[in-house]
Amino acid sequence: MKNYFIEKPSQTILDQVKNKIDLKTKPLGSLGQLESIAKKICLIQQTRSPKLNHPAMLVFAGDHGLTDENISAFPQEVTHQMVLNFLSGGAAINVFCQQNQINLSVVDAGVNHTFAHHPDLIDRKIGFGTANSLHEEAMTDKEFNQAMAAGAQLVDRKFTKGCNIIGFGEMGIGNTSASSLLMSAFTDCSLEDCVGRGTGIDDQGLHHKIDVLQKVYAQHRAKLNDPLTFFRCVAGFEMAMMLGAMVQAAENKMILLIDGFIASAVFLAAYQQYPNLMCYALFCHQSDEHGHQSLLDHLGQEPILKMNLRLGEGTGCALAYPIIQSSVAFINQMASFESASITNKP
Amino acid sequence: MKNYFIEKPSQTILDQVKNKIDLKTKPLGSLGQLESIAKKICLIQQTRSPKLNHPAMLVFAGDHGLTDENISAFPQEVTHQMVLNFLSGGAAINVFCQQNQINLSVVDAGVNHTFAHHPDLIDRKIGFGTANSLHEEAMTDKEFNQAMAAGAQLVDRKFTKGCNIIGFGEMGIGNTSASSLLMSAFTDCSLEDCVGRGTGIDDQGLHHKIDVLQKVYAQHRAKLNDPLTFFRCVAGFEMAMMLGAMVQAAENKMILLIDGFIASAVFLAAYQQYPNLMCYALFCHQSDEHGHQSLLDHLGQEPILKMNLRLGEGTGCALAYPIIQSSVAFINQMASFESASITNKP
Repeated sequence: MKNYFIEKPSQTILDQVKNKIDLKTKPLGSLGQLESIAKKICLIQQTRSPKLNHPAMLVFAGDHGLTDENISAFPQEVTHQMVLNFLSGGAAINVFCQQNQINLSVVDAGVNHTFAHHPDLIDRKIGFGTANSLHEEAMTDKEFNQAMAAGAQLVDRKFTKGCNIIGFGEMGIGNTSASSLLMSAFTDCSLEDCVGRGTGIDDQGLHHKIDVLQKVYAQHRAKLNDPLTFFRCVAGFEMAMMLGAMVQAAENKMILLIDGFIASAVFLAAYQQYPNLMCYALFCHQSDEHGHQSLLDHLGQEPILKMNLRLGEGTGCALAYPIIQSSVAFINQMASFESASITNKP
Repeated sequence: MKNYFIEKPSQTILDQVKNKIDLKTKPLGSLGQLESIAKKICLIQQTRSPKLNHPAMLVFAGDHGLTDENISAFPQEVTHQMVLNFLSGGAAINVFCQQNQINLSVVDAGVNHTFAHHPDLIDRKIGFGTANSLHEEAMTDKEFNQAMAAGAQLVDRKFTKGCNIIGFGEMGIGNTSASSLLMSAFTDCSLEDCVGRGTGIDDQGLHHKIDVLQKVYAQHRAKLNDPLTFFRCVAGFEMAMMLGAMVQAAENKMILLIDGFIASAVFLAAYQQYPNLMCYALFCHQSDEHGHQSLLDHLGQEPILKMNLRLGEGTGCALAYPIIQSSVAFINQMASFESASITNKP
């Protein structure tokens, strides 16, 4: 695996940024979270006049061998059906990306289906779904590295076209299960506290899901000393590709938009290895999926939106994007007390 | 005063709306709060295919006689200075309205300043600030009715041009004080629990503010049996104009965007007289101003954004507008399980 170098942004510009924000025509601190978003973006871009260029959304799709264990409300075939829905423009992520002029790419990272050629489907298929992590490692070392590299290459393709802000979405029946395992591995939360209803299983299904995941956890716990090895044993191809995409984007000093539970769990795993990743990430939405709030608390991050969505696909990123634009707009466009001849607080 | 007739929207279409939402290609309920917003808008417009037309923002400015009592961090002159800032495009509300293509109108409801003629300033001045409510009624009956009628007329002007969604902002040094009095009058909260730091007073200032407001409350408490009379005795011209604007917009079956603490307090007062107002209102933002969360809890409303802003001007409405657009976009544009040939949950 390539070793990524993620630089911590220099903090020297921070005082100038704070000063610029504090002299805007508004009570001190009164733009709340918009001010912290603006500060973070200014640090990433090392400027007091940040810009958002060519926003992009990469949606990775993949299937999970663990779905053999009946841990999801929807059958595995929904993954490929939803990919076709993305391609025909009918999914929520299509609608929100179109609304907010975010360039959307759909990537087959490892769906258990042979797609007919489609001009808008990016084929990076690692395999027809991962192995069943209850019995074996979900991915081989080679598959994992291949997925990471593909994610990184897709980000670089956007970066060379001028993109400096990128969101990551996913589609994969079974991937809340993988995410719960990651969360339990890298936080103090018990597995029960990390498992939720995903696309909507009932009480009985939830008990069964927890039961299966406890066995999967026990199966791979010996690899916990190497976070990315544990990740490889339980996660999906779409998650591995997202992980590669995240670290490459941070190496490129792009702004990373982190979506809901699954994207946050991928981030959490990547963060074990690359703590500076945090400097580039905006957490867009707190999902209604059980455990996501604890995961964000563990990361010490305040999400931009809390609207009880639990859909994935990158929808939280696309919805939050106009708010991020607002934070950039205020720091660039608002008048200062002096320029507007307004009496500042004594 | 004109008697407004605010009709409760017929609920007969609700099952069809729910059905349309539930058949979209997503797990049931997974768009969370976007779904409740969509439902409310569908009911207001009595359609399953809602539209947002010519969004508008009315910002009312006025001064408060009570500022003589030193209850604000900023001096009264900031009200007129900020109006000039709105007119030159340098305030936060300008930036966010421009970003989201919301038509912004700035109204002099009663600022203590003689403005030079400006093509973009709408002159509806009722007076040069209200009377000091510590000693007398803030407005006369005539002034109050005049302000309400002006607000209603400004809304009608937008409505006849095709606007069906309208936000209300304010600028008025001292108006968090008036809002705290309204909140205390119409909720079970003690005055202390309704008073906050406004634009940023310190601890000593806060104690003084509470002390003054207790005296003002005592002075006018005899009028509490008539909510709008109590309102007239303590509120500002900009708040009275906003109140007239809200009830007229609801009578017109427009979508009302309610901003932070002050707009919510005006809404609360109007709601005492016109309970059906609630059917038309979207609460855009939970302010960082002390008391606003309790006020929203009292109204049983979940705000769209919680970003710790405390700026007013209508900024919460302008920031939340793209989210409201998203709720309308998903119900109109997403595919259904059937149209996308996707297996629904068994």
